[in-house]
Amino acid sequence: MSEGKLVGVGVGPGDPELVTLKAMRALGEADVVAHFAKAGNSSHSRAIAARHLRADVIEMPLLYPVTTEQPKCSNGYRDAIRDFYDAAAEKIAAHLQAGCVVAVICEGDPLFYGSYMHLHARLAPRYATEIVAGVTGMSGCWSAAGMPIAQGDDVFTVLPATLPEDDLIRRLGDSDAAVVMKVGRHLAKLRRALATSRRLDGAMYIERGTMADAKMVPLAAKPDDDAPYFAMVLVPGWRERP
Amino acid sequence: MSEGKLVGVGVGPGDPELVTLKAMRALGEADVVAHFAKAGNSSHSRAIAARHLRADVIEMPLLYPVTTEQPKCSNGYRDAIRDFYDAAAEKIAAHLQAGCVVAVICEGDPLFYGSYMHLHARLAPRYATEIVAGVTGMSGCWSAAGMPIAQGDDVFTVLPATLPEDDLIRRLGDSDAAVVMKVGRHLAKLRRALATSRRLDGAMYIERGTMADAKMVPLAAKPDDDAPYFAMVLVPGWRERP
Repeated sequence: MSEGKLVGVGVGPGDPELVTLKAMRALGEADVVAHFAKAGNSSHSRAIAARHLRADVIEMPLLYPVTTEQPKCSNGYRDAIRDFYDAAAEKIAAHLQAGCVVAVICEGDPLFYGSYMHLHARLAPRYATEIVAGVTGMSGCWSAAGMPIAQGDDVFTVLPATLPEDDLIRRLGDSDAAVVMKVGRHLAKLRRALATSRRLDGAMYIERGTMADAKMVPLAAKPDDDAPYFAMVLVPGWRERP
Repeated sequence: MSEGKLVGVGVGPGDPELVTLKAMRALGEADVVAHFAKAGNSSHSRAIAARHLRADVIEMPLLYPVTTEQPKCSNGYRDAIRDFYDAAAEKIAAHLQAGCVVAVICEGDPLFYGSYMHLHARLAPRYATEIVAGVTGMSGCWSAAGMPIAQGDDVFTVLPATLPEDDLIRRLGDSDAAVVMKVGRHLAKLRRALATSRRLDGAMYIERGTMADAKMVPLAAKPDDDAPYFAMVLVPGWRERP
């Protein structure tokens, strides 16, 4: 019996054409293909990769537990998420133990802020693993915007918009280029932090970066502070162009 | 006559399988394909994408001027580089003016620390442009290392190893996760900065990330401070795993 292998397959930021040849091959060779989705929703990552799945592949949807009733910092939320990843890892382990190749479809890049990392941390000590790097969501966004983001000796920083306002001000002022993620209900705070750190001019607001219905607007020109959780703000560097 | 278009085509970090379907299509549709190389060397980016070039495509090698005799901060170096990008942009503009589609092959992602950005800045105000996002070199490296790099609310920073030691210490201590680029002759300084900021444990040294002859070793276990210019050091985040 051959040994099983876990493969984290990055399928890029949303445009099905931003899938790599390596991801196509990995999906075509897998015995089992797993994908994350919210309970009651179809999987975004599966939709990106659907055309590359074999008709006879075993699919394993991994449905995040419904947690809208619990604050994110609560023990209840932490426990529910931990139990969910534990259970998902064990379901996958059963296939690995049987010698199967299990591919997990990952939006963006598997090891950069991705859910796959929780499975990897649980299974890599016990089973062979392989990672297929993918185009990140942020690359998809600055490419869609045609915005050169960082060059030369620029310091580039990825910041969650959840940071306190003072911390955002300090870090934005201390970076040549930045991407702010998880904008959601933090946009008013982020806008103030960008203004205080003199980085509001040039900042670009983007929703659904490489989807057909992408929306992008200079943040200074956006009239309201409404934003979905996955919206991003790009702050370009490269201020001394030769 | 149809209007010309400039296309920056990311072809990923080196593994020819990490080319996207979109990059393949863009290269196949181009009338002219340009690629950067050092004078006297073959183009790395061309080698990654070679199998996707049409037999009848017009190729335009863009050869960096030889600048080894001049310190990087000198006016002579700056002038030579600026003149080189000016001339390259004008050669491309002649094809765009004639209605051609010109693809520029870019290692990694076109707008993330790439030479293409210099052409884009010169030509985007005058001509239609399109960017095909690519897998970055750093994604290729942490994927090859199987190293989860950042998760949740981590602050992630890209730092050039050229920074002064004090600045490296401060920024490494202030980031959850980091990638240090352009390691080259700065490895001894970087090693000291990582030790002082208590980030040496876990740091991974990588050369030629996704090439067949990749070399990776925990930095603490690397016996010398020899490193090529394009070596990277990865400093993983995600310190509170659920």
